This record gives sequence, C-alpha cells and structure tokens, in this order.
Amino acid sequence: MLLLHRAVVLGLRQNCRFKSPPSKLCVQACSTNDSFQPQGPSLTFSGDNCSTRGWRVMGTLLGLGAVLAYHNHRCRAAQESPRIYTREEVKLHRSPETRIWVTLGSEVFDVTEFVDLHPGGSSKLMLAAGGPLEPFWALYAIHNQSHVREILAQYKIGELSPEDKVPSTLETSDPYADDPVRHPALKVNSQRPFNAEPPPELLTENYITPNPIFFTRNHLPVPNLDPDTYRLHIVGPGGKSLSLSLHDLYQFPKHEITVTLQCAGNRRSEMSQLKEVRGLEWSTGAISTAHWAGARLCDVLAKAGHQLCETEAHVCFEGLDSDSTGTAYGASIPLARAMDPEAEVLLAYEMNGQPLPRDHGFPVRVIVPGVVGARHVKWLGKVSVEPEESYSHWQRRDYKGFSPSVDWDTVDFDSAPSIQELPVQSAITEPKDGETVESGEVTVKGYAWSGGGRAVIRVDVSLDGGLTWQVAELDGEEQRPRKAWAWRLWQLQAPVPAGKKELNIICKAVDDSYNVQPDTVAPIWNLRGVLSNAWHRVHVRVAP
Amino acid sequence: MLLLHRAVVLGLRQNCRFKSPPSKLCVQACSTNDSFQPQGPSLTFSGDNCSTRGWRVMGTLLGLGAVLAYHNHRCRAAQESPRIYTREEVKLHRSPETRIWVTLGSEVFDVTEFVDLHPGGSSKLMLAAGGPLEPFWALYAIHNQSHVREILAQYKIGELSPEDKVPSTLETSDPYADDPVRHPALKVNSQRPFNAEPPPELLTENYITPNPIFFTRNHLPVPNLDPDTYRLHIVGPGGKSLSLSLHDLYQFPKHEITVTLQCAGNRRSEMSQLKEVRGLEWSTGAISTAHWAGARLCDVLAKAGHQLCETEAHVCFEGLDSDSTGTAYGASIPLARAMDPEAEVLLAYEMNGQPLPRDHGFPVRVIVPGVVGARHVKWLGKVSVEPEESYSHWQRRDYKGFSPSVDWDTVDFDSAPSIQELPVQSAITEPKDGETVESGEVTVKGYAWSGGGRAVIRVDVSLDGGLTWQVAELDGEEQRPRKAWAWRLWQLQAPVPAGKKELNIICKAVDDSYNVQPDTVAPIWNLRGVLSNAWHRVHVRVAP
Repeated sequence: MLLLHRAVVLGLRQNCRFKSPPSKLCVQACSTNDSFQPQGPSLTFSGDNCSTRGWRVMGTLLGLGAVLAYHNHRCRAAQESPRIYTREEVKLHRSPETRIWVTLGSEVFDVTEFVDLHPGGSSKLMLAAGGPLEPFWALYAIHNQSHVREILAQYKIGELSPEDKVPSTLETSDPYADDPVRHPALKVNSQRPFNAEPPPELLTENYITPNPIFFTRNHLPVPNLDPDTYRLHIVGPGGKSLSLSLHDLYQFPKHEITVTLQCAGNRRSEMSQLKEVRGLEWSTGAISTAHWAGARLCDVLAKAGHQLCETEAHVCFEGLDSDSTGTAYGASIPLARAMDPEAEVLLAYEMNGQPLPRDHGFPVRVIVPGVVGARHVKWLGKVSVEPEESYSHWQRRDYKGFSPSVDWDTVDFDSAPSIQELPVQSAITEPKDGETVESGEVTVKGYAWSGGGRAVIRVDVSLDGGLTWQVAELDGEEQRPRKAWAWRLWQLQAPVPAGKKELNIICKAVDDSYNVQPDTVAPIWNLRGVLSNAWHRVHVRVAP
Repeated sequence: MLLLHRAVVLGLRQNCRFKSPPSKLCVQACSTNDSFQPQGPSLTFSGDNCSTRGWRVMGTLLGLGAVLAYHNHRCRAAQESPRIYTREEVKLHRSPETRIWVTLGSEVFDVTEFVDLHPGGSSKLMLAAGGPLEPFWALYAIHNQSHVREILAQYKIGELSPEDKVPSTLETSDPYADDPVRHPALKVNSQRPFNAEPPPELLTENYITPNPIFFTRNHLPVPNLDPDTYRLHIVGPGGKSLSLSLHDLYQFPKHEITVTLQCAGNRRSEMSQLKEVRGLEWSTGAISTAHWAGARLCDVLAKAGHQLCETEAHVCFEGLDSDSTGTAYGASIPLARAMDPEAEVLLAYEMNGQPLPRDHGFPVRVIVPGVVGARHVKWLGKVSVEPEESYSHWQRRDYKGFSPSVDWDTVDFDSAPSIQELPVQSAITEPKDGETVESGEVTVKGYAWSGGGRAVIRVDVSLDGGLTWQVAELDGEEQRPRKAWAWRLWQLQAPVPAGKKELNIICKAVDDSYNVQPDTVAPIWNLRGVLSNAWHRVHVRVAP
C-alpha cells in the first residue's frame, strides 16, 4: 500500500511540473513592511491570488494525499495527551532520527511519517523542520484548505509553552537588535550584518522570488525609517539639494520592471573550496528576481537640473545605514547609465507590488538593471553627481575582480575597475549535490542570467561531466532586446543512461553576445571570491 | 664574431619593443584604391610619416646591422655575373635548404646569409621569401634609406626576365578575374572568393592594421564600382528611396572611429582540429583594426525620414556584390542600434585615411562597432528598415551559434539568434606554436578584444598550461567607456622557469563585464565553427 502511495504521489509530482510559473504569487500574508513576521493561527489567505493551474493541480493532489495519509497513519493526538514543549525543544527535532517536529500557532506536530507523503516534495517540508509552518504556508497558500488542517491535526503531539507563543523582546544594546524578523527558510551566512539566501529548491519554484525569501545582502544594521519624515536628498549641479519626501517621489511617472539582482559573491563557496577567500560563504542563492516599481533616476536627476555631460561622471549613492563611526554604505554608477532612459535605473519604492521590506531598503532603494547588487543602494539617503566614482570602501576597495595570481600582499585595488555589469551565470537548483535520483528519468532545474541586459539564449546541460550536452528548455518571460534584466529559469528532463550508477551534472549558459561561462573555477579564482561563474557541477547517485 | 652579432642584434631587438605603437603608419605606397599593387623600383617613401621613436630605434639598429653585415659577408654580386631568372624560379627559393631569394624591382637577391641578421627578426624577412620585397617595404618605410639599399646590393645574384617585370593580364571569363591584386604576406584561406588573413607576427606589429594586410572576408567576387556613378539607395518610411552619390554622403557630418573587425570564424581551425566543421580554415588572423571615417547611419536614416519606433525593427543592408544568379550579399542589425548615436554605426568611405580599398568595400561599407564582421556589409547598395531581420542566407542560415550536440541533421537555424555582438576574445601572436624560444626570458605578444563596446580590462598569461598566471601589459589606446570598439595589444616579458624544456603558453582575456573566455574548445564546438574563443594555447620548446 505504501508503495502504491509513492507511485501515485510521484506520478502526480511529475504532472505538477508546469512549464509556466504562476503569474501571481501568494505573498499576501508576508506583505507587511517588516519583512516576514510569523502569523498567528488566524492567518487568512487570499485564494483569489492563487488560482493558477499549477496551484489547482497541487490542491487536488494534496486532497488525495490527505485521503491516503488518513488511512495509513495513526492519529497520534488521539493516543497521547498533549504535552507542553518550548521552541528550543522543538528545534531539536529536525531529522527522521530525532523525529521531525513543526509548529502551527501554539500547536506542536510530529510529521515524521508524513514527510515522504508531502505532495510538494519531502525536501520542501523539511525546510520547516524544527520550527513554525506559517512562513512556508504563507508562501504557498494552497495550504489554506480545511482538509490540510485535518491532515495536520492527526500529527499533533502537544502545545508550545505559553512564553514561547510571543516573540522575544528587543535587546536594545545591540545595533542589530532592531533588525526585522526573517523567514526561517533563509540559509543564513551571517547574522550580523544579516546575509542570507533562499535554499535552491525554493529559489526556482517561482519566476518571481517571493519577498520573504529574496536573498538578503546587508553590510550594516537595518535602519528603521519613518516613511512620513523620510527625505531623499538629490544634490543639484549648483550644490543645492532637492529634498524629496516619499509623496514627492510618487509624483514622478511610476516605472515598473522585472529585474534579477545578484550579489558579486554568489557561488563564492565554490571558490573557497579551492583556496581560502575573504567573504561570506554564499552558495547558489545570492540571486533573486522581483518586480520593482519606482521613479526613474533619469527623471529625478533631470528635475534636479542634471544633464548628461561629455566628460565622464558618476552618480554616487549613499545609504541611511551606517556603522558605529557613522560611515554610511555607498556606491556609484556611471552618469551615462543613470541618464539613459533605456537603462531604466530606478529609485524603487515597491517590490512585488508591496512597499519595500525593511531588509530590502524601505522606503527607497536604487535598482540598476543588469548591474551587480552592490550598486543597488538600499535605504537611499543621498544622490549626487561627481567627477569620480564613490569614495566608499565598497566601490574602491571591494567588489573588483583580480587575476588568480594576485594575493592580499600584492593586490592593487586601483588596478581593476569596479564591478558594474556581471558576466553570464547559471546554476543547477535541482537535484542537489550528493542526492540520490531515481533511475529512468532525471529532471534538472536551474536558473540562468547575464548582466548588461544581455538575454540568455541557451543553457546546455551535461549528465556525463561535460562529454556530451543537451539543450535545456527555457521557462519564464521572453526578454526585451538589450533589456533582458531578469533571469530565465530552465529545466531538462532526460533519460538516465542505462547502467549509470552516478551522474556528473553540469550546466552552462550562453547569452546573446555569445559569451559563455568558463569551464573551471581555479582560473577565475580571486582573493575576494567574487564573479564565480564557472560551469555549475552537481554529483548525484542513481538509485539501483 | 657571429655570436657577438647575435648578442648585439638580440639586445637591440629587445630595446626595440616599444610600449606605444607608431601613431601613424607608413602605408603611403599602398594607398591606391586597388588594394596593394606591387611598385616598381622607383618607390618613394615618405619619411615624414615615419618619425616615431620606434622607427628611429629600428633605423639606428638597421644601420648598425648594415655595418656588421658588411664585414662578415662576401659580396656575391662582385664574384658572379648577373643571371636572368623567372618569377617562377624565384618562388622555389624560400628556405635555407633551397636558398632564400627575394626581388626588388627587376633585381634578384639571395639573402640566405642575411636572414638571421635582419633587425626586424628573421621571421619577418622570411614572409617575403621567394617573392618581391616591395609589399613589405611599403609597410615598413624604415627600409627607405640608402644604407639599406647598400646592404641589399651585396646579395644581388641576377635580374628578372623581361616578361616577368609586368603583371599578367586579366582572364576575362572568370568572375573573379577582376579581383584586385593582394598583398603577398596575406595567408590565403580561399582564393575565390578571396579570404585571407595577415600572419600573426605582422598582425600585432601595429595597433592599426595597414590596409594591405587587413584580413579580407569576401563571400562573392569583388565588384568594380565607378565612384562617379555610384549611388546608395536608402528606402524611406513611405517606400520612397533617397539616392545618395558619394558627394551627397560627404555632406553629412564626417565621423571618425577606430574599430576592430572580427570574422565569426576567427580561430575556426582550432575547432576543426577537434571535429570537422563547415567553413574556411581561419587561424588567429581573421581580426584587424582600422581607423574608419564616414557618415553616421543614424544621420542618413533620419534624413530619409526614419525614426526609432517602439516595435522591433531591423535595418537591412544589401551589397553590390552578387553571385551568378544575381543574389547579393545581405545582412541586418536591429534598428535600435542603428539609430543610437552612441553606437556609432557608420557608412564608411575611408579606411586609415584613404578611400576604402576595393577588397574592403569601395566606395562605401557599413561599420557596426562591436558587432561581428558579417554585418559590416561592403560595396553597400541599399539600406532599408524592415519589421524582420534580413532574409539573406548569411543572416538566417549562417553566422549563428549552436550547442556542440547539434549536427547538420538536427540543426534548426531559427532556434538561435543571429550573431551580433561577439564574446570576449584573445590570442597569442608571438611566439608561434612549435617555435623554439631562447632560455632566459620569453616575450609573449597578442591581441584581446570584446564585442559590444566592452573594454578589455586584463589579459592573463600562463607559461605552465594554466597552473599559474601572470598579468600581461596592455598596449594601445585607452578605451572610452561603453565604446571600446577597438582591441588592446598586450605583451608579457617573463623569465623562463629554470630547467624548463618546453612551455605551454596560454592567454585569456577579461572584459569590463568581467566576462572571460572558456577554458577549452570542445564545449563550445559548433557545426559552423564560429565563436571560437577558448583560451589560446601555444606550445614552444626552450633552446638548451
């Protein structure tokens, strides 16, 4: 009977691989300004936003899963009296060996027996292991159905202790104490400043990354800004500032674009595996895509009296985040890009139809399509036009690429240009390295993107370490010429060659300038571990 | 004594490696409209054009070489009576074994003993072996000094037969019979249509490639156009043509830019070594740089009434070269590029200060900076704006990139975009593969370029097959941001690691989007052998 379940669920999972991602995301429950905040059990979801084919299929599937589960698993709640657990205790239960616990509201559930039956895949449910379900249910509103609650009720084992039902209070002496609460699915690379990425299996679930799991790259504590008193200072050509309130900014024509942001350090961990680098250990998730809205920088600069000039100039941005000495984050882009309406540089105040979350720059950040994340300055306080690049540490002494031969004794930061446009990139998000895949057919999924508005035109996938290649299917929106600001998701379904016990899966992308990714990491290794865009490699075993 | 000469000459050769290339080239003798035409013995050179430091150094050097040579080599002319030789006989003498002969005017010389003493390097003189010196002396006007003539006189062995002093007459039945005479240094990959590249050791001698050795990529016979009756047809928005004479074209503002052109098939031979491809066997020389002048396409299109429109459109070019069925060469570029003044697309009528040579599109060709050579349509006859790309074979069924898995049975030309911008590229021009280099120090030279106006920011060179890297010195002009249309030449002088018997030299370039070249050829192999931009590799032996 259990085997039958597996077959049915697996079959349904395959049907569930829809070519077009949902056009609208169900992030309503996460749309507060303060990034994600866990919701109480009275969560309400908007079914209207979730009416895509994909979700409907999954709904049907989950219904079936419930029936199957009902007949096969004992109701633990019926046999044992509810007990009281702390959040710390729940956290200890994150694997089949220690049992897998989750919470919803004040209730605690042992879902160990249900994990393999989870219609969205066991790996998705495992992301919530040891913690609350709300953040994930908020992303996938399909769970807002009575029969899902019914399934879960079977697995109840107790209640949270009363003091664990409310979040802990702020530690006021800590500059990071006022940072927003984050989504627990994020893989945290640094807590202070907060730097985190979505896990690969969530990253390419949606063409538009839901706000709560959009990768976060902070350099400093998150400022807590009052939208009513917020002012953006635009230094004019005569040195006179234009001081814009949020309301003033709304008066400029509202421009909307879908843009992928990528940190220069994305996939750094592959470089550090080779030889030590200085930087956060980003895996493949320091990249995400959102639909941004705001005023065009060129319109705002023009209003302040700036024009494109013949001599080289730079637009310098300063954030309202600062360190203990008062030094703010800063960066710059060339004036030519800032003033080019076709480059679509935004002063964005909306992310996926919501005010910017605090972690992503509330109330205003810069969006520089096709350019490294470091220039998309968050919590924007000041904009000025200067003859030189920003003197910020992050413009001059960081975010630059060097030869593999350069070390910290020999590096001359002035010898390399600051990273602006990024090179062509792609990575595999499924299957994961070290995973075991079924024999028969394998599905490989991932993302591909290139800087400077260059569209991805092809992704090649190899299952044999690069000896032979197959062309993947590109999903996601068609790109405008010269303005391909957003990624393409891709997938390949291919037979596993008979008799193979393992697969060395590789992906590599080509952009519309026919630039390609380099084969290996070592020749592009650099002391800061940036620009890591070699072929992405995943090794998996094939189930016998 | 001979050893002393070698030491002196080698030392001087090293002094002769000047960082800045000559700003002006001595191509006066080659400036006729009909590409290169061998000149009679009454050649006059303009010393004024050649007054750069580099040439002066070489002049001094050549003077010294003359003195040294004078004392060490017998005057063959004084000992033997002049004999009469045909050009065919001279051609047989191209190696030390058969003796090395050259001609100047009607005189024949045996320069076997002088080759190793040639101040410009023996390989340069060997390019002229078996043929006339004039084409090379025309490129390097330093030879126009009386003491150079004196040296040469020592080696005279005879005269050309009278009938060989004039070029042969045209074969009129051959569609290619009227093709211009070409420079003998060009390495011919196809005679009909004519396709040829400069040898690597000449290619990077000058930042600006002299017209006679600029690589030539013809698809059809070269038309012989009368500049007085030439008309360029610009189809206007209402279908009405603007008919422009050359004189009309001169009335538009004259715009001048230095642009590198590269054939999509450059370095194809490295792909065909791996697995057969269809295409001409280009080595590393299907790339050259010239200073172009002409009218901006955007000005001419505006005059014809065209504007940039919101919907996608293409500017189609038609050449006046055609095959036996009357089908002309054609190609197109996006209207957005054509109308962008910053993209600097030209209708060029000058190449390095001269009217275009016939092989390069006389009287008018398109120059599309940063874009594959195939779109720079020569002998331009017609320009129109269309909703679709050109229907030409060369736009739709050629000059596209595919996955290595695609073969002639499976290729779908509609599935790939036409090549426009090219990826980052670099190659080693010295030393040559298979050469023996001196122990002590090695000099590696080459070029690097990227498409789309992206500047080359770094070239890494490895002497050990890619294990370690050194950063090369970039020569040539500084590039304008976003408009780096021309290549950078580069060189690295490095000690040969002690005890090494061979070197596996590699170069790889990085552009300002931090795109890099792929490590190996196989994963970018494609059935047409285009876009061959893997690391360039040269294997040399080290002299014991």
